[in-house]
Amino acid sequence: MTPALGGSGEFDRIRAIAAALGDTLAPIGDDTASIPDADGTLVVSVDATVEDVHFKRAWLSMEEVGWRAAASALSDLAAAGARPVGVLATVIVPASDGEAELVALMRGFGAACASVGARVLGGDLSSGAQWTIAVTVLGRAKTPISRAGARPGDGLWITGALGGARAAVESWNAGVDPDAESRLAFAHPLPRMQAGIWLAGHGATAMMDVSDGLGGDAEHLAAASNVKLEIELEPVPVHPGVAAAAQRIGEEPQVFAATGGEDYELLVTLPSSFDNVPSCRRATGVGLTRIGTVREGTGVHMTLRGTTHAIRGYRHAI
Amino acid sequence: MTPALGGSGEFDRIRAIAAALGDTLAPIGDDTASIPDADGTLVVSVDATVEDVHFKRAWLSMEEVGWRAAASALSDLAAAGARPVGVLATVIVPASDGEAELVALMRGFGAACASVGARVLGGDLSSGAQWTIAVTVLGRAKTPISRAGARPGDGLWITGALGGARAAVESWNAGVDPDAESRLAFAHPLPRMQAGIWLAGHGATAMMDVSDGLGGDAEHLAAASNVKLEIELEPVPVHPGVAAAAQRIGEEPQVFAATGGEDYELLVTLPSSFDNVPSCRRATGVGLTRIGTVREGTGVHMTLRGTTHAIRGYRHAI
Repeated sequence: MTPALGGSGEFDRIRAIAAALGDTLAPIGDDTASIPDADGTLVVSVDATVEDVHFKRAWLSMEEVGWRAAASALSDLAAAGARPVGVLATVIVPASDGEAELVALMRGFGAACASVGARVLGGDLSSGAQWTIAVTVLGRAKTPISRAGARPGDGLWITGALGGARAAVESWNAGVDPDAESRLAFAHPLPRMQAGIWLAGHGATAMMDVSDGLGGDAEHLAAASNVKLEIELEPVPVHPGVAAAAQRIGEEPQVFAATGGEDYELLVTLPSSFDNVPSCRRATGVGLTRIGTVREGTGVHMTLRGTTHAIRGYRHAI
Repeated sequence: MTPALGGSGEFDRIRAIAAALGDTLAPIGDDTASIPDADGTLVVSVDATVEDVHFKRAWLSMEEVGWRAAASALSDLAAAGARPVGVLATVIVPASDGEAELVALMRGFGAACASVGARVLGGDLSSGAQWTIAVTVLGRAKTPISRAGARPGDGLWITGALGGARAAVESWNAGVDPDAESRLAFAHPLPRMQAGIWLAGHGATAMMDVSDGLGGDAEHLAAASNVKLEIELEPVPVHPGVAAAAQRIGEEPQVFAATGGEDYELLVTLPSSFDNVPSCRRATGVGLTRIGTVREGTGVHMTLRGTTHAIRGYRHAI
């Protein structure tokens, strides 16, 4: 929908963005967007993607930059078990690029929003030294799931497979083109919205998305819930791109995967009685694997074939 | 409040920010913040402040950078007549600066939030080439005021005085230190929250904040409301710093003030019967001046002593 706006150059850009977003864009025209209150809790988060910090231009198309920025922010809503309501984008555009790049970025951004039924409610544009996309996501849940609810005895589970995004980044950093599947894991992550909502409705006690790597994020969940997490790395599902990338740097595939961040899978604790893996897959298309147990205590204890592994948090791409 | 978080370097920074924000920071620890639904409408907006685009480091202390970033975003809530609920901050920190600058910025940011009773709900930190603060503001109103409700016959009013921020910027750009009052108008703008809420409760039909200059923003309001605005520049209150700065560049003070942006005053249309200026001042501390009339038609017609002036929108600082 084309907004009713004034006539300066900034608004030409906004009109081009509006055309790229199509029906994904809510009616705009004011500095603010309005969301009627309902019967639940609004869940809100912000997430920034910065050129040469989170990605390099040479790695991604502008559509992929936009998709990835939106998907990584939407992933925070998935981890709260929230339905997306809307998204706002602040985009900093370097002088070296123009409207074509911005429109391509917003096309990818809008596609990620549309893929989970989120509308673009508004945003802000500025020039600057490097591409920066700060994404605000708004969702709603009856009772949002936090990192703080894990109880001793709960099982620890993970959606999907880990390590694909790291495999792509390690390849690029080594001057090698990543295989297509790893590249896709980095360039086109899928926010686990359906799985997050399903898990929230099936007893999830604590949940978060794995953006800093299983090692780092398990520490965060353990600290927030004031529990200890015992993790066995054997069952951790490893992305198909990991084997080659791990071999190249001489790391065990399981350790490589547990160290890799930005896969945007969900790390979730569920009651010990949970055994609904097939219905989760049927309902959401996403696999679910038990990788550990919540215990009384503090910190994370990871083992692989009986050996303890201390796994650091993932350092972002560059 | 110190959040329960893991142990990496990023979290040391977050702890330092939490200490700087004190009670203004809501309990954190998750990627998302939660806001219980109520009986009204949630109003949301984002606003970015970028170093060397919206300000120069030499002009402002880091506390002022933080205050200004928060205040300019909160101003959008004021224009909707919304009470602030909370704020999220994405901050990009250049490698050349460190924790002291970040903490000072967040101290000013938090002070602006505290001044209007808004809590900091969360945020995101990244490194990058230049200071960038993307601010998400959340407020609530029974019925948010938009730009789109002005009706032929309504009066057009403005809060406070215009031109102070532009006077400071023109001074800096001319290599002159601005006078203290102009400097304050730029460095420490006051979001007109009380006035916005009061005006919404006293019949405001359309409202917006003057960030792009009276000339540009009146065009936006006229376009959104599908009306014509007739503005007389004689009564427009001019900031005390304008006289000297306008004289230096040979502009009429009224024209200088109407061209200056980033004063964050409110432009509002009110029923023709409105005559409550003294009670507005008593209730909110802010003056209110009638500067024109809403007519059928399109566009903006500005006159000064009978001469028509076409006033362009304000181009941001640099």
